[in-house]
Amino acid sequence: MDQVRVIEVKQSVFADNDRRAAELRAELKEKGIFLLNLMSAPGSGKTTTLRRTVELLKDEIQIGVMEADIDSDVDARAMAESGVKSIQLHTGGMCHLDADMTRQGLDELVDGDVELAILENVGNLVCPAEFDTGAVKNAAILSVPEGDDKPLKYPLMFQVCDVVLINKIDVAPYFDFKLDKCREYIKMRNPNAVVIPICAKTGEGVEDWADWLRRQVKSWRS
Amino acid sequence: MDQVRVIEVKQSVFADNDRRAAELRAELKEKGIFLLNLMSAPGSGKTTTLRRTVELLKDEIQIGVMEADIDSDVDARAMAESGVKSIQLHTGGMCHLDADMTRQGLDELVDGDVELAILENVGNLVCPAEFDTGAVKNAAILSVPEGDDKPLKYPLMFQVCDVVLINKIDVAPYFDFKLDKCREYIKMRNPNAVVIPICAKTGEGVEDWADWLRRQVKSWRS
Repeated sequence: MDQVRVIEVKQSVFADNDRRAAELRAELKEKGIFLLNLMSAPGSGKTTTLRRTVELLKDEIQIGVMEADIDSDVDARAMAESGVKSIQLHTGGMCHLDADMTRQGLDELVDGDVELAILENVGNLVCPAEFDTGAVKNAAILSVPEGDDKPLKYPLMFQVCDVVLINKIDVAPYFDFKLDKCREYIKMRNPNAVVIPICAKTGEGVEDWADWLRRQVKSWRS
Repeated sequence: MDQVRVIEVKQSVFADNDRRAAELRAELKEKGIFLLNLMSAPGSGKTTTLRRTVELLKDEIQIGVMEADIDSDVDARAMAESGVKSIQLHTGGMCHLDADMTRQGLDELVDGDVELAILENVGNLVCPAEFDTGAVKNAAILSVPEGDDKPLKYPLMFQVCDVVLINKIDVAPYFDFKLDKCREYIKMRNPNAVVIPICAKTGEGVEDWADWLRRQVKSWRS
């Protein structure tokens, strides 16, 4: 397999992250690039979900993926196999990405043709939610084995998300996970969040998620 | 159920966390209190594991539990049902506990009789690993659904841990999780880490973990 490009992103020196995120978003709008920020706890299935998503959308939308991690290039290598442009961002120990770090990644990723840029954030339900990356939409994945109470315990993550994917629904029979309860907890945190149950491993529900994403990209670029 | 005591811990103003952690550890040694710092990603089963552990040890060791969370008192309520002293620490959005925040919790938890104090850290594989809490030993839980590659992606967590519990081994048939590979990755990060496979839900393997913990407490207090 080809070597994966690894970018060592530097922590931002800018205190005014919100302003810089807004500026980045405005630039992306002008360039017709939709940036999705995908967040979740470690092991919720971000990379597997992205691979499925890319399979469904890559023939109609030009996609580029930024895989952020403390270390390793496991995820970028997996994405590269999906046939989309993929780079690895190393955060140098940082637990999140801010707008300026995201911009450093975008500068490497985008060479004129990317319409949908996806940032797979660091696996963490806490810190990434605190920093606006400049993304047009935020998505979170919560997987069944993590438990239906996570919106109670990690409120900000669910407040800032436009869409929540409930992943690994195939193993629901083996876990005490109540989908209705989970929907209710998410609604408490964010009444506008769209909730889509999926199984990234089998592909169940991923079409619904891809439809949602396709609509968002079209609307942003129109 | 009784109300759970909730402590709002304040972020430390002290830059020299390592020194303060060492001081706390020295005080705990003098008082004969063993402090365990239990860390994991969200939903790995920290609370369920603790409930099992407490069942096995509470008749021979005086135990007190501090449940740290961004928000909610879900975990402290669950622990209180186990019949041990339990308090909830709220971190006010912070993703970790440092030595001073831990001390604030201990001051509320310990009233002379606690021999084993357990800190259930914030669910997060990144930030908690960066701060010495003053604990005598660090434990991490990695659950099967998260995947066997987590030691590659969250190196520091596995470097700082004395023991790693591999939880939810009952669902291993439904996930592509290789225990041998996981042991190998953990060893890469930390050759001295003890690895104990468990299923907190059924109790499988928890006796081995309780034995390890019992030995540590005895050795620290002797």
